[in-house]
Amino acid sequence: MSTAAFRELLGTQLPVIQAPMAGAQGSEMAIAVCNAGALGSLPCALLSPEAMRAELKKICEGTAQPYNVNFFAHRRPVFDEFRETAWRALLRRYFHELGLAEPAVRREGEREPFGEAQLEVLSQFRPRVVSFHFGLPEPALLEGVRKLGARVISSATTVDEARWLEQQGVDGIIAQGLEAGGHRGHFLSHDLTLQMGTFALLPQIVSAVRVPVIAAGGVVDARGVKAALDLGAAAVQSGTAYLLCPEARISAQHRQALTGPGARHTALTNLFTGRPARSIVNRIMSELGPLHASVPEFPLAGNTLAPLRAEGSRLGVSDFSPLWAGQNASVCQSVSAAEVTLALAAGAILD
Amino acid sequence: MSTAAFRELLGTQLPVIQAPMAGAQGSEMAIAVCNAGALGSLPCALLSPEAMRAELKKICEGTAQPYNVNFFAHRRPVFDEFRETAWRALLRRYFHELGLAEPAVRREGEREPFGEAQLEVLSQFRPRVVSFHFGLPEPALLEGVRKLGARVISSATTVDEARWLEQQGVDGIIAQGLEAGGHRGHFLSHDLTLQMGTFALLPQIVSAVRVPVIAAGGVVDARGVKAALDLGAAAVQSGTAYLLCPEARISAQHRQALTGPGARHTALTNLFTGRPARSIVNRIMSELGPLHASVPEFPLAGNTLAPLRAEGSRLGVSDFSPLWAGQNASVCQSVSAAEVTLALAAGAILD
Repeated sequence: MSTAAFRELLGTQLPVIQAPMAGAQGSEMAIAVCNAGALGSLPCALLSPEAMRAELKKICEGTAQPYNVNFFAHRRPVFDEFRETAWRALLRRYFHELGLAEPAVRREGEREPFGEAQLEVLSQFRPRVVSFHFGLPEPALLEGVRKLGARVISSATTVDEARWLEQQGVDGIIAQGLEAGGHRGHFLSHDLTLQMGTFALLPQIVSAVRVPVIAAGGVVDARGVKAALDLGAAAVQSGTAYLLCPEARISAQHRQALTGPGARHTALTNLFTGRPARSIVNRIMSELGPLHASVPEFPLAGNTLAPLRAEGSRLGVSDFSPLWAGQNASVCQSVSAAEVTLALAAGAILD
Repeated sequence: MSTAAFRELLGTQLPVIQAPMAGAQGSEMAIAVCNAGALGSLPCALLSPEAMRAELKKICEGTAQPYNVNFFAHRRPVFDEFRETAWRALLRRYFHELGLAEPAVRREGEREPFGEAQLEVLSQFRPRVVSFHFGLPEPALLEGVRKLGARVISSATTVDEARWLEQQGVDGIIAQGLEAGGHRGHFLSHDLTLQMGTFALLPQIVSAVRVPVIAAGGVVDARGVKAALDLGAAAVQSGTAYLLCPEARISAQHRQALTGPGARHTALTNLFTGRPARSIVNRIMSELGPLHASVPEFPLAGNTLAPLRAEGSRLGVSDFSPLWAGQNASVCQSVSAAEVTLALAAGAILD
């Protein structure tokens, strides 16, 4: 699969997608990347339909290039009183320490799965690419996206997931290796031993499907892009490489963690949202263990944690906040999103 | 770091090391690989000094090319009665099921760390390369190896371990990514969240040290070799790719597992030896969970498990035996070790 196949598919000059990073970036990042010749992405998991519309409007004003709009495709969680109780018991000592009251119980999460409201906003913008994480939305919704003319791509973390996505007719598959920062995209099984490093996952998916495969997980520079293309990728998706850009919207604590020696130590944790995601190890991950069985279902875990995160931020500490990053975070640099894009693309010999 | 640096160091034509796989191969494999132009390895962790001498004699008769002799450099375990008791309680149901008596308690493990006896045998053969896993032996022993004229290489699973090895004066470092089959080589920390995929570990070690870096973990074919060299490796070490060769000495059950659909599902497990190692998931791993806190220290865990393994083998089942394999096991083929070697080397453009 050549990079030409990818460019034909997505309409961009360079075989690079800037990974959508909900909470860490918005339209500025997407615009900068699109204007540099790669595919910029707008993550919408944390946006209301109104906020999404405002961001998409900015993108259309800021660039004439194709862009990607990204959604989570999880199913709404079922509130479980016992897990919530266990979770509160685990967090109680931190509420005591910070002198905070526990928040009221909420039965809905902060992250919206893709639905009718989002489709309605998309119909006004007709983006070239729509990407999903955690599988795909229900068939009727997916069909709605296709009817807008969008190319659809989604993440696979196993060969089974890649084959399933191909059967649903996606136009491209993001092979998300274990090195990747943020949420694992797995959706057919929650068994983490099934998750593979990029060096194993990528060639196996390339062999298993016929659609273009986009490599994600540990790709942060030109040599990584070259290696990913050697392993059969048609393009790469890189997130961590962009985290230190001025266009990113991360906290001062997150930025500090990314530039410190701790950036080499990440772990998969479910503490922040209920789903395993890769973060630089911080206090709560060390103290409770990064993966805990008592954490409420995604994304409900974040509700009870929210006051601790807010107070931590106010105090300037990262004890309770996710520090999303991939395993190659330690090589990232504080340069513009355009520079990161061109540095990555230098690894691709365009055919 | 060019592959020429590696060839100068190790004296082989091709930038490929056949990974030493204790229990899975002996001199036949090493000879075949050496004669094909790469560096064949003799794993000695499970060999008595006498057996080691016999195998080395065969290698010297079978090839005039340089070869590698590999040892474990762990410290002898301290027997812990409480862990042994807990371990036996976990295994009891299997002894009942198979109608076997529990074996007598043994306070010594089956795997020998490198010591005076091994050094004495080496002095009669003066191999070009000696490699270690789990760190390095005590300084006096290491000095003894050097005095024989051997180049010394060892595995690093973190940047800290790579720097430590360089400080001890090793001639090359094997960057062992998380995809690799068999035992993880970590020795400075047992925290598994520190373990990285090859796509992250390899370039970080390449940037951190000045000695040649050998990529291991997920490298099973030419495209993998090309990708590893792109990421800065001077050579690759590949084990899983050789497991199905006629020169391998694996059980029929192991061979069957490697060619079945289950080969895609490996996990790190400490059940077989007490140290985390990657195996295809089998019955005992599924039932007890692959990583268990009650397992005796390496390599003592294997003692109590031994009768179950033996009876399982007799019955033709792999329920209690390790099925060592890397995450890319599913792409391996039943061809000769020479063919595997040349297929790997096709990914390297020799300079």
